[in-house]
Amino acid sequence: MSDVTGGTPGRRRGRPPRTESAGTRDRILSAAREEFSERGYEKTSVRGIAKAAGVDSALVHHYFGTKEQVFEAAIEVAFAPALNAPAAIEEGPLDGVGERLTRFVLGVWENPTTRAPLLAIVRSAVNNETAAAVFRRLIASQLLRRISARLDLPDAELRAELAAAQLVGCAMLRYVIKVEPLASVDVEAIIARVAPVVQGHLTGP
Amino acid sequence: MSDVTGGTPGRRRGRPPRTESAGTRDRILSAAREEFSERGYEKTSVRGIAKAAGVDSALVHHYFGTKEQVFEAAIEVAFAPALNAPAAIEEGPLDGVGERLTRFVLGVWENPTTRAPLLAIVRSAVNNETAAAVFRRLIASQLLRRISARLDLPDAELRAELAAAQLVGCAMLRYVIKVEPLASVDVEAIIARVAPVVQGHLTGP
Repeated sequence: MSDVTGGTPGRRRGRPPRTESAGTRDRILSAAREEFSERGYEKTSVRGIAKAAGVDSALVHHYFGTKEQVFEAAIEVAFAPALNAPAAIEEGPLDGVGERLTRFVLGVWENPTTRAPLLAIVRSAVNNETAAAVFRRLIASQLLRRISARLDLPDAELRAELAAAQLVGCAMLRYVIKVEPLASVDVEAIIARVAPVVQGHLTGP
Repeated sequence: MSDVTGGTPGRRRGRPPRTESAGTRDRILSAAREEFSERGYEKTSVRGIAKAAGVDSALVHHYFGTKEQVFEAAIEVAFAPALNAPAAIEEGPLDGVGERLTRFVLGVWENPTTRAPLLAIVRSAVNNETAAAVFRRLIASQLLRRISARLDLPDAELRAELAAAQLVGCAMLRYVIKVEPLASVDVEAIIARVAPVVQGHLTGP
């Protein structure tokens, strides 16, 4: 699938001139991200994306393939800030990894610009099995492999997922369900309590 | 609202005979639970619930009020197993509370019968602000108050929510998104790693 979602467009039906194709592709991707964010996976159609981008549906299929593949390409871009999480793990000493990762993830959620697409992905993945499968593939291919490489422990993936569970749960209760007092407490108070837990999952006994 | 969602039906338009009303009320509630589970909050209508229960829409309004109130009554029943969580905290010694609560919550999610309605609640709350508000009220009134009473610490509610965040995140990644290896690992392996975290949040320094 990397030939479809990667930097160059698919070439099933000939190849548009390079400059035009880059602009059109980006416009479709941007429209797709907005449509998926606003409507969720199920209610979004390739036709609607094409209309929002001002192109023909056939062109969307040409560049990306199926709706599932458009979704995958769109969330790969929307998810990009979150995909920098492994950098927080890879760079710096291992005993500060809990705080770096916690700060990074909550930082992405604190920022409304990066929160909106994340929220859309979570909503789609919770509601639709195809969207969940895309999300799973992305986590496995982009996050777990790099985290495991740094931790170098046989149970590194499970450790990473339990650490992620603490952070995902915090994000759900603070930013999505908005349970008080968690929703209003200063983010530093959360980091102080959660960072040691994340550290423990990743490097503890 | 407790007069509407409580054990006895609302009495705005007269009062049906006791035995008939109990049967009808339960039938509506059961239909509501199924409709909300299958379609989520947004796509469910009072009309659809009435049809599934074989009654007139007016009767649904009579017993429960608005769609939001039907939802609140339905999830209060569907959420009942989860509402026993405070018992795991209230009963037994405080230094075993992490394991009891973890076992309890994962137990509810491991069981397909209790998992289905929970999943429906999570989906609705993630997708719809009204459903999220109902969920929030339920958590505040049913869970946090009892947990705070047992912990008797000034930050008891925040502690309870961070513990809940670890468990909610585990449930999301294991049962909803189904990320491997977390989705397939033996539940005891999760309890062994997560119970100390939950204990730490609740009673740690």
